[in-house]
Amino acid sequence: MNTFREAGLSLGRLPVGKKCAITDVSGVQVGHRTIVRGEGEESIRTGVTAILPPGDPFAEPLPAGLFVLHGHGKAVGLWQILHLGTLETPILLTNTLAVFRCAEALITWTLRQHPEARSINPVVLECNDGFLSRIESRPVTEEDALAAIGSASEEVVEGCVGAGAGMVAFGLKSGIGTASRLAGPYTVGALALPNMGRQDDLRFLGRQLDQTSSGPGQDGSVIIVLATNAPLLPEQLSRLARRGALGLARTGAPSDPGSGDFLVAFSTCRGPCGAERVRVEFVPDRSEGMRQLYRAAAEVTEEAVLSALLAAETTEGRKGRVVPVLPRYLLNTVTGDA
Amino acid sequence: MNTFREAGLSLGRLPVGKKCAITDVSGVQVGHRTIVRGEGEESIRTGVTAILPPGDPFAEPLPAGLFVLHGHGKAVGLWQILHLGTLETPILLTNTLAVFRCAEALITWTLRQHPEARSINPVVLECNDGFLSRIESRPVTEEDALAAIGSASEEVVEGCVGAGAGMVAFGLKSGIGTASRLAGPYTVGALALPNMGRQDDLRFLGRQLDQTSSGPGQDGSVIIVLATNAPLLPEQLSRLARRGALGLARTGAPSDPGSGDFLVAFSTCRGPCGAERVRVEFVPDRSEGMRQLYRAAAEVTEEAVLSALLAAETTEGRKGRVVPVLPRYLLNTVTGDA
Amino acid sequence: MNTFREAGLSLGRLPVGKKCAITDVSGVQVGHRTIVRGEGEESIRTGVTAILPPGDPFAEPLPAGLFVLHGHGKAVGLWQILHLGTLETPILLTNTLAVFRCAEALITWTLRQHPEARSINPVVLECNDGFLSRIESRPVTEEDALAAIGSASEEVVEGCVGAGAGMVAFGLKSGIGTASRLAGPYTVGALALPNMGRQDDLRFLGRQLDQTSSGPGQDGSVIIVLATNAPLLPEQLSRLARRGALGLARTGAPSDPGSGDFLVAFSTCRGPCGAERVRVEFVPDRSEGMRQLYRAAAEVTEEAVLSALLAAETTEGRKGRVVPVLPRYLLNTVTGDA
Amino acid sequence: MNTFREAGLSLGRLPVGKKCAITDVSGVQVGHRTIVRGEGEESIRTGVTAILPPGDPFAEPLPAGLFVLHGHGKAVGLWQILHLGTLETPILLTNTLAVFRCAEALITWTLRQHPEARSINPVVLECNDGFLSRIESRPVTEEDALAAIGSASEEVVEGCVGAGAGMVAFGLKSGIGTASRLAGPYTVGALALPNMGRQDDLRFLGRQLDQTSSGPGQDGSVIIVLATNAPLLPEQLSRLARRGALGLARTGAPSDPGSGDFLVAFSTCRGPCGAERVRVEFVPDRSEGMRQLYRAAAEVTEEAVLSALLAAETTEGRKGRVVPVLPRYLLNTVTGDA
Repeated sequence: MNTFREAGLSLGRLPVGKKCAITDVSGVQVGHRTIVRGEGEESIRTGVTAILPPGDPFAEPLPAGLFVLHGHGKAVGLWQILHLGTLETPILLTNTLAVFRCAEALITWTLRQHPEARSINPVVLECNDGFLSRIESRPVTEEDALAAIGSASEEVVEGCVGAGAGMVAFGLKSGIGTASRLAGPYTVGALALPNMGRQDDLRFLGRQLDQTSSGPGQDGSVIIVLATNAPLLPEQLSRLARRGALGLARTGAPSDPGSGDFLVAFSTCRGPCGAERVRVEFVPDRSEGMRQLYRAAAEVTEEAVLSALLAAETTEGRKGRVVPVLPRYLLNTVTGDA
Repeated sequence: MNTFREAGLSLGRLPVGKKCAITDVSGVQVGHRTIVRGEGEESIRTGVTAILPPGDPFAEPLPAGLFVLHGHGKAVGLWQILHLGTLETPILLTNTLAVFRCAEALITWTLRQHPEARSINPVVLECNDGFLSRIESRPVTEEDALAAIGSASEEVVEGCVGAGAGMVAFGLKSGIGTASRLAGPYTVGALALPNMGRQDDLRFLGRQLDQTSSGPGQDGSVIIVLATNAPLLPEQLSRLARRGALGLARTGAPSDPGSGDFLVAFSTCRGPCGAERVRVEFVPDRSEGMRQLYRAAAEVTEEAVLSALLAAETTEGRKGRVVPVLPRYLLNTVTGDA
Repeated sequence: MNTFREAGLSLGRLPVGKKCAITDVSGVQVGHRTIVRGEGEESIRTGVTAILPPGDPFAEPLPAGLFVLHGHGKAVGLWQILHLGTLETPILLTNTLAVFRCAEALITWTLRQHPEARSINPVVLECNDGFLSRIESRPVTEEDALAAIGSASEEVVEGCVGAGAGMVAFGLKSGIGTASRLAGPYTVGALALPNMGRQDDLRFLGRQLDQTSSGPGQDGSVIIVLATNAPLLPEQLSRLARRGALGLARTGAPSDPGSGDFLVAFSTCRGPCGAERVRVEFVPDRSEGMRQLYRAAAEVTEEAVLSALLAAETTEGRKGRVVPVLPRYLLNTVTGDA
Repeated sequence: MNTFREAGLSLGRLPVGKKCAITDVSGVQVGHRTIVRGEGEESIRTGVTAILPPGDPFAEPLPAGLFVLHGHGKAVGLWQILHLGTLETPILLTNTLAVFRCAEALITWTLRQHPEARSINPVVLECNDGFLSRIESRPVTEEDALAAIGSASEEVVEGCVGAGAGMVAFGLKSGIGTASRLAGPYTVGALALPNMGRQDDLRFLGRQLDQTSSGPGQDGSVIIVLATNAPLLPEQLSRLARRGALGLARTGAPSDPGSGDFLVAFSTCRGPCGAERVRVEFVPDRSEGMRQLYRAAAEVTEEAVLSALLAAETTEGRKGRVVPVLPRYLLNTVTGDA
């Protein structure tokens, strides 16, 4: 169960998966490399989170799509997802200045298994943790990224881990969150890295909480990765990612002018390959199945963001800044009638 | 005050305009032509709603932008907004099969004032009212559209009027709704035509209401028109329209696979014209002003949708179908802590 | 044979279809309604061209895609093609101010066969013939549009017919042009309505012709409709339409700031329908078949535009304006080494 | 003069700049780091090319836009250009697997001058030189990228230098090419990195050359960077980049399904900055100036691609593969009437 469910909360209409995590999508694994050291001006609060699709993504790419709600971000690998519709590496999340070392790591990782590879499209997304972490010291190494991949398992740790170590959202400490839903025969899972919004933007289960503690009010970003086992075409996965943005909006995420809000979706249901003609099965657009998948995408995204807030811990970082967690008494006022 | 405010409700953080209507943006006017007649299979529940920008839009086009959340709709005039960034006619809302007659009416209207016009880009958007209305009898005429324009004033009537006559959203009777916010020195207003969502999709101020009465569960669409007096470039207005979609998501709008969810935004602040070089003042992207405008766009959109639900009246239409309004006792449970 | 081939010209590498026309794609038909009357200020030089897909498009929609090179045009029906990927009516071409009457005609035509239809997405594209024709008198009627559909056959008449009656491109009289290519087992056809470019923009088989006669130098637009029997997904058809734009560029089309350059592509290979799961066969993106289809799309587009120029006749219209055809002696200099 | 002009060739209608190079746009500089070593299987034929905008791009970002003709590429930094409209680093070109080290180098370069930077958006584009070069040995280092930047000057070396060392286009050896045009008071320049097309795709000044020598027939990509001193908004620069694609099409570039064809455009005319309101002067869309700029963008792109072919030298690389240059006798047949 994710932290949101452990807190006795619920949202939406659809049944949840067994772990209520993105790894309820069979074969998906998540790993973290957390880098926390130093204090004051020397604080490092950062890391890498890896999402591994099942199997060998380079040998057998997976259908993938995306939605860019606002593109002030350094994400790499997305044009190929948009125009070719395939994911061929794990997905890494990290801080803004570590994107390219993580991309290097994905090249290294792929070449180890496929020395014949001549073209590799690493997918890395980022949020900026420079509020709590000395980001410009560039503490993340290729080895860290490879360690995140190496540690991946079906158990998703939430909170201040991996790329989530330095996240701040709605003036509150944030981190990694996850959730899942069952949409008929299919499962949809989300992993969230929320780093956006000011204190008074938050809508926790629709409620605007009047917080007294106050965190930073900067522009920020959010990354959402959606996985499903439903057989969907790339264009349909892009549409699914759009519905993730609906769930994101329900948390109060403002998509500020300086935000890089990217949502990537992939399906673990690979189509058969063929040289000059392929046959693919998929869920038709105008079907009850698709309607449920859309709703699932919105629900898991909303819940994964909220779960990230609940799983986080008060954190002190750069310049002695302390970012508090969501006050529990506010949570109680919500739990009553959620 | 819009119906939402009259009901003692509030949402968001920003101050509201005087009328809490799109016409708080100076010079904007709204008119309706409501067409309600017949019963049973002969029921007509439809109409036209006109949104007039100030001045002569053909002689002096206004900056405009748009966001298409999902494009299963028959909207006309939007490519030119997207690629040229200008609005040169009033905006009309109507039913799905009446779009082109309304476009004809906008050509007629423009040629009356500008007989020299050789190219005119009418903007018309639509939702499908075929659940309550014999839409295929094509009851809307050019005269109806011209009457809607002719009746425009600064007072916005909400509810089952104009294009709102036959709307159904979340299984409830819907119609026209409006709202406004002040964002620093600027005003942002919205007019909503919600016709989307199933009963259990609704999030009224974040709450999922457990309705016992039940309406239709079809795919549906929603149209949002945003107006502002802030000096914005077309691309910025497109970004503003995206933030309207965030507010839309907060109402629970699912953006179903068969939905045509279009958001159009225009600014009443025309730039000066010039032959080979123009000078324009605008709000920079990464400014506090823009952040407030984004939040305003989300707030007015959410509120305009909810106000449409509150302003509507239980309506009987085609095949004796009765679409109820939002039960007031549910509203009371919300009012308590909104 | 199209006029281009009849003139002994050739371009590209791929074999041409039997008629070198869009109707080489089995089941596709083209019809025209030409409206030419009056002289001087009363000149009407306009019409409607209809492209009919095989079978009943409303009962069984066809996969479709599009590319908007520049969107200053009044095209209707394209958002649904973009977001749903289907064509459900014939495609009509006409003048700028007649788009909506043609759309009305498509609603009428569809309702005659499907009285139960509640939502219809007519597809109409346009160029502006106001240079030669009294466009603002709105001479095209619904009956004209229905007549164009009714006259459709497998023989494509090129030149100053249908929507081509009043076209001007590169300062020369233009009209309707068509071409086809075989791409392995598949056929790709194009129908062009060129109305763009100034005199010195033309590249006729790559050559810049130094014309002495001179026509108008206004912004203008071009419409391209591509048809194929290859099994392609909507997104792939959008990519095919992009390659049509490559062929268009080779004619020297400048895509001026006031141009509405739209390319629509559809496949006659309908997928099987299914309620909750469908199986589709298609040509994979990275295949030799797709490479050939892309080249075919570029070749047919270039050739259809040039064929339109060759098939046109010198035309006198509004204000006594005379638009000449491409001087034959220039053609001779090209034929030599084409 | 670029190699194309030195060969006595010309194309288009607009006057050329003094050097007929992208550096005719005042303040723009170009540098190369060429890495050529080894033979046979150990061949390295690669490098880095740097395009520097005038001034300090991080302190004062430049307006920028882009067009992705087909997105099968690993370009980084483009989402921010698309959604924020600014360029804040030099632009680097390199091979497919070296993109991320080059991005690292841009972070290093920026932090040296701006140690306070917390977010940096490096822009790097690539083509795949794996046909001639042992790309998977990852021969490009951060130092190479910094050296390319450091060597930048107003003299543009064309041919097999920098990122051009290993390029192959139309089955011929390709490299770096450049060109410029004057569009009224403004200058437009292009730098091309062509690596696309098969032997029979080439249109050299419109002519299809019947080559007897034959090079590789793989999918490939092309990168175009456009610079101008015209005051343009980001959206306008994106439109300018689209017109570059028209020129690209005229060379016969097929935009194959595996191609990553990216065109980036920037203006050296920075707008004044302002906190809450800015005033910007720009060329209006529908002006003669914009029409000329569009034509200039097409002309320089076409010419830069052809110049790259002419400046290249026959190259032997990996597996003893020899890629020939364009046969001069074919050139002679073209020169006659160009």
